[in-house]
Amino acid sequence: MELTTTRFGVGLPGWVAEEIARVEPALPDVEARMRVAHRLARRNHREGTGGPFAAVVSDAATGEVLSVGVNLVLASGLSGMHAEVVALCLAQAGAGTWDLGGAGRPPVELAVNWRPCAMCYGAVLWSGVARLVIAGEGDEVEHLTGFDEGPMRPDWKEQLAARGVDVRTDVLRDEALDTFREYGERSDVVVYNGGGRGRGPETQGS
Amino acid sequence: MELTTTRFGVGLPGWVAEEIARVEPALPDVEARMRVAHRLARRNHREGTGGPFAAVVSDAATGEVLSVGVNLVLASGLSGMHAEVVALCLAQAGAGTWDLGGAGRPPVELAVNWRPCAMCYGAVLWSGVARLVIAGEGDEVEHLTGFDEGPMRPDWKEQLAARGVDVRTDVLRDEALDTFREYGERSDVVVYNGGGRGRGPETQGS
Repeated sequence: MELTTTRFGVGLPGWVAEEIARVEPALPDVEARMRVAHRLARRNHREGTGGPFAAVVSDAATGEVLSVGVNLVLASGLSGMHAEVVALCLAQAGAGTWDLGGAGRPPVELAVNWRPCAMCYGAVLWSGVARLVIAGEGDEVEHLTGFDEGPMRPDWKEQLAARGVDVRTDVLRDEALDTFREYGERSDVVVYNGGGRGRGPETQGS
Repeated sequence: MELTTTRFGVGLPGWVAEEIARVEPALPDVEARMRVAHRLARRNHREGTGGPFAAVVSDAATGEVLSVGVNLVLASGLSGMHAEVVALCLAQAGAGTWDLGGAGRPPVELAVNWRPCAMCYGAVLWSGVARLVIAGEGDEVEHLTGFDEGPMRPDWKEQLAARGVDVRTDVLRDEALDTFREYGERSDVVVYNGGGRGRGPETQGS
């Protein structure tokens, strides 16, 4: 047997650099970091690169931004390229380590514009981040956008805490809901639930 | 702000092509597909590219192999590059779609040499595969290898079934345990639990 595909690569769309060009390299308060996530999430769905989700990885002490990620499921054609995965991969690629919480390294924060889905929850567990900051955690995201976020355990925050990850929620919550509402009101979006359960222009008969 | 890292890429190590060169391109029975996963998993940890885990994505009807993946956490430096993620990304990159279960496509199987971890569980949910075949599902993997597999819901199989994914377990189970036992008995391995909870040569003081 000969393998036809042995590599894959993922890159941030060009508009991301443009969008954050005027953002300061260090953002000392958590609201400023979440505001970047909100801006990227909103532009991401408008640009058609993926769903309305974005993430910012930073030095938890100084607020220095280490990487950003947006949902790239549509742009990359890979179902796993959620914002958290993209941001964590870029932070680890930049740092040259699979453990952002390794010995001698400063604590790292991941800020996301909603609670991670079932997959990203696990991705956070293995990444080595010390803090997860989210805009909110309820099922509003599913009601407003139509996305399936997957089954979560009721004790998901305690499970993170047991592995050294603090969770802070409700940071600029209303702004997150505004983005999801805008997304949900569009008639031309692709909701990329897998297994033929997606809906939207590109999923019709493709 | 200027982003320093905007791209990442992942490729299978060269030994994978060599290892499967004599494997038939279509493997009509599930044991043959699992046997490939077992071979790749065992060689992966011996080669030092990652943990003792591998996955095979195939056409569920014909057994045609669409992609293979091995755990590349160490080789890639990315904590999310578990075998399932690598195999699913390569299958989707090859097929040119984020939904392996999209309309008009043949059903796809993912065979893995143990139950997916918390993250890979979610990755399976979003991938569009119609069948998940695993060698086993108990906590033997954690006892034998030292890896944290993360919190799972007791109803994880029912949650997959509700999204159209059938699960078949205990396919060549003993062979999986042999590999985990061999791995666990090594003194020179890196157990890449994140957050400074890893153990092994490279995690000491790095």
